[in-house]
Amino acid sequence: MRLPDDLARDAESRILFMVLDGLGGTVDPSRGVTELQAARIPNLDDLASRSETGLIVPVLPGITPGSGPGHFALFGYDPVENNIGRGVLEAAGIDFPLQEGDIAIRVNFATVDDDGKIIDRRAGRIPTEECERLCDILSSVIDISGVEIFIRPVMEHRAAIVLRAPGEELEEGVADTDPQATGVLPFEPVADHPEAEKVASLLRELLAQAVGPLAEAGTPAYFPLLRGIARYRVYPSMRERYGLKALAVATYPMYKGISRLLGMDVHEGARNLEDQLEVVRTWWEEHDFFFVHYKAPDARGEDGDFDAKVAAIEEVDAALPGFLELEPDVVVVTGDHSTPALMGEHSWHSIPVILSSSVARHSGMEQFDEITCARYGTLGTFPAKHLMGLVLGHAGRLDKFGA
Amino acid sequence: MRLPDDLARDAESRILFMVLDGLGGTVDPSRGVTELQAARIPNLDDLASRSETGLIVPVLPGITPGSGPGHFALFGYDPVENNIGRGVLEAAGIDFPLQEGDIAIRVNFATVDDDGKIIDRRAGRIPTEECERLCDILSSVIDISGVEIFIRPVMEHRAAIVLRAPGEELEEGVADTDPQATGVLPFEPVADHPEAEKVASLLRELLAQAVGPLAEAGTPAYFPLLRGIARYRVYPSMRERYGLKALAVATYPMYKGISRLLGMDVHEGARNLEDQLEVVRTWWEEHDFFFVHYKAPDARGEDGDFDAKVAAIEEVDAALPGFLELEPDVVVVTGDHSTPALMGEHSWHSIPVILSSSVARHSGMEQFDEITCARYGTLGTFPAKHLMGLVLGHAGRLDKFGA
Repeated sequence: MRLPDDLARDAESRILFMVLDGLGGTVDPSRGVTELQAARIPNLDDLASRSETGLIVPVLPGITPGSGPGHFALFGYDPVENNIGRGVLEAAGIDFPLQEGDIAIRVNFATVDDDGKIIDRRAGRIPTEECERLCDILSSVIDISGVEIFIRPVMEHRAAIVLRAPGEELEEGVADTDPQATGVLPFEPVADHPEAEKVASLLRELLAQAVGPLAEAGTPAYFPLLRGIARYRVYPSMRERYGLKALAVATYPMYKGISRLLGMDVHEGARNLEDQLEVVRTWWEEHDFFFVHYKAPDARGEDGDFDAKVAAIEEVDAALPGFLELEPDVVVVTGDHSTPALMGEHSWHSIPVILSSSVARHSGMEQFDEITCARYGTLGTFPAKHLMGLVLGHAGRLDKFGA
Repeated sequence: MRLPDDLARDAESRILFMVLDGLGGTVDPSRGVTELQAARIPNLDDLASRSETGLIVPVLPGITPGSGPGHFALFGYDPVENNIGRGVLEAAGIDFPLQEGDIAIRVNFATVDDDGKIIDRRAGRIPTEECERLCDILSSVIDISGVEIFIRPVMEHRAAIVLRAPGEELEEGVADTDPQATGVLPFEPVADHPEAEKVASLLRELLAQAVGPLAEAGTPAYFPLLRGIARYRVYPSMRERYGLKALAVATYPMYKGISRLLGMDVHEGARNLEDQLEVVRTWWEEHDFFFVHYKAPDARGEDGDFDAKVAAIEEVDAALPGFLELEPDVVVVTGDHSTPALMGEHSWHSIPVILSSSVARHSGMEQFDEITCARYGTLGTFPAKHLMGLVLGHAGRLDKFGA
């Protein structure tokens, strides 16, 4: 038996699932508080006082997740068993129609010198139009027998390559060719184990065919650096697992990509929280799970800008009442990982979570932050992958287990 | 993928890992407080207020660990998967060079009467020199074809036997021969399952050869009681798993033995906390993980002496500032298990833990004890085996997981 999946049942309830990317923080030494502690967030404070609260651990204690594992855990997909590759995320983010067994690769177009050594790993962040032109050139010249090769622009210097070999098994296990440094040669595609040799040799052939046409395409002499070479496998959708008709309302491609991988419907076009509220309101009757992704706390945390992260949190607090007016049966507010401004990058720190429903216990806490969630949280500290079980329970969407 | 191992990376950070053996306690009914609550520990209180804190569960709720599992869990080795035998611990404690597949046995020399019934399981705690003499006698007389037999004194009535059969598999699964009672005969070595029959028969032969020479060696008539008969297997070292160059600074042989089994360098000669601080200071540049073991809280807890355990905790509190002056990047203070004076033995109770670093959240708690860690701890209550992940994360020694 698989839990909670095998207990899932239909219900009329609607779930608002707000992910404040990089929400968790840590103590800024000059202020003595975290970003959340510093923020004036009366609406979140109020909601938390009437909600279950706690802290979630995205992967395991001490493990810092990327965005993929962070979100997979939130949606109840074990992030270690389902360790999604960067290439797959990149391809899903541009809505490329991946098929089971495809090998997806993230590409950076880099500038190299006459000896082939890397001068600029991002080729001066070329315009997306230029990236499109390069992808078109490569698509027209590269030809490897028995393999379909898709080369698609993403943004600026970033592209995606997908290898598909009908009737043949392509195995992942080829290391990045990007040395993450300048002044050196890119690595050759090398297989970690014998089963991955086929993909490694395909990629060597692909690079060999690419290098001439790219050199002729004009300066800077672009060279594709390959990263996150990963096999795509189909994940069971949230509808299959939980019976949820989910709508993702995100502003960034990557989060739309993750949502697609889990079978969510994905709204295109929302640019900010105001748009996102409007989308959720518009589709309120047609879906029962609304994933609203808010990027700013992570972005400002990665900038290392404590005050800007505080402001980003305050901005979503101001938008919260609009969402609550829709009267969701269950409201979740949490993050996919922490991004402390002090560190300027993702971290392993646990993430505060609010879980509100008419049958929730009340934390009674007066403010919403990492420390009060630890002290007063009714849910304790628990693995993020178990959050969806709680959400479904509160939404009346799970049968009783056992007699 | 194995976590956190596969994410481990080098860093310049230094980790001070202080194990206060048997630290946790429970409420003494006449006082209404635990040992930690009763102790005046201003330095630990202060550190805890600026640190992440929580409670660790050594094995599973309700399970009382021995010292082996307690420490294995602290160092991130699953204590159930890696259930180390007492014989192996004993042999490692005297720095016997164990090899994969050795069978190691803890021995008590006991006094038996003319009928072979046990009079004193510890033979009056004979001097270690007498134990050495008996081991020499046995080493010279015992001879079993195809098997190397090592017989080594440990301390007082305790010794270790190691069986090694080159080219042959020796399997554990022979029960203790020590009936843990007097007035009865020792048990025969009996195999739990057919694969262990070889070891059982070797031990029967060994005892048969030993009994005459020991009877002639002088009164009390020593008879070897065999305990913890266990197969040695090589554990991956902390350097292999985490990239840590670890130094163990312990005063008791068993903890040095555990440290050796995990590939730590082991300092010999420290007799007290003052020595231990001096050793850590001396080797500060040469290692990056310092395991400081402090035995007294466990010993006083086992004595059932509440006040003495309080004093032992106060003693380590007084020594703490000297260690902190070294400015470790990460400081851990915890225990391997609880030893409540009320019970006079190891217990299953969770153990308070302090985890300090420059990126730690601040518990804000005003005193360090079991109850405040439960109330205010930012880490919650979690399996001890996950502590090392947190330590490595705080030490900047883990890569990000996933894209």
